[in-house]
Amino acid sequence: MNLSDALSLIREIPDFPQPGILFYDVTPLLGNPDAFETTVIEMSGTHQNIDYVAGMEARGFIFASALAIHQSIGFIPIRKFGKLPSETFSENYGLEYGTDTLEIHKDSCAPGTKVLIVDDVLATGGTACAAIKLVQSAGGEVREIIFLLEITALEGRQRILNEFPSMTIRSLKAT
Amino acid sequence: MNLSDALSLIREIPDFPQPGILFYDVTPLLGNPDAFETTVIEMSGTHQNIDYVAGMEARGFIFASALAIHQSIGFIPIRKFGKLPSETFSENYGLEYGTDTLEIHKDSCAPGTKVLIVDDVLATGGTACAAIKLVQSAGGEVREIIFLLEITALEGRQRILNEFPSMTIRSLKAT
Repeated sequence: MNLSDALSLIREIPDFPQPGILFYDVTPLLGNPDAFETTVIEMSGTHQNIDYVAGMEARGFIFASALAIHQSIGFIPIRKFGKLPSETFSENYGLEYGTDTLEIHKDSCAPGTKVLIVDDVLATGGTACAAIKLVQSAGGEVREIIFLLEITALEGRQRILNEFPSMTIRSLKAT
Repeated sequence: MNLSDALSLIREIPDFPQPGILFYDVTPLLGNPDAFETTVIEMSGTHQNIDYVAGMEARGFIFASALAIHQSIGFIPIRKFGKLPSETFSENYGLEYGTDTLEIHKDSCAPGTKVLIVDDVLATGGTACAAIKLVQSAGGEVREIIFLLEITALEGRQRILNEFPSMTIRSLKAT
């Protein structure tokens, strides 16, 4: 299956989770093994000598874990506050109303290791910026942050670049 | 790496998330690509002609998604209430205090499809029973439910068998 056919399985669901929001539902893509594999291969790009793929709870776990096992790379979970049992670094990030916190284990990656960050959707970029900071706090070097889908109207790419001007950002589909 | 060496990377963290609880932390295993792959291959067992791997939010996503992509099988997310955007089936299940709800998309698997359910830890079995019911509601036939780790003192295996006497249950490590 080519990438365009795989991405065409993402379905748009209006008014979810609230009126006026158009939700991009990746579950039909995940349920099709050819589409899922095509997407994961495209995400992996041309990287070599990557040590870890980091993914954010919960939906980010799906693509990040798949990419890690497919490319024989270690996986690092970035979790919501209070879920990781060992010592952590924490980052707060802004939501539309209020803030939330993400954490990474302090011992998740050795200094100088090369890390890809993978998530399904780039929206405002708040989660992405927190994830980059967490990987850097743990000593990892973020080689690229990769999204299945980028909602360009929310300008998340610019927000990431404002904080990390040399960051490489890639999305498989922009809308 | 053999399975025993892979499983030896699971570390025990006392008093998490509360005093008196011994938490099994799989993150060191996930961070080691050989250990992660050995574990996923062992989980896959000798099944053939499986249509889907279903995994429960959030930690269950990690192993279920990895198994799905490794074996070229579709992936079905089973999510907490209110997270899936299309029509769902719901199941309540008991926690130590109160209840929680899991959901599956109604169109996640066609009638008669063969499904593996994967989670990291079998504790009381409440989540597992809800997941089995959800897959069955959507029309899937649960061929096996597979865990990385089974905490035998919590008798989750018996609870599953009480509800589903012919269910095949497998854990890679029991403690």
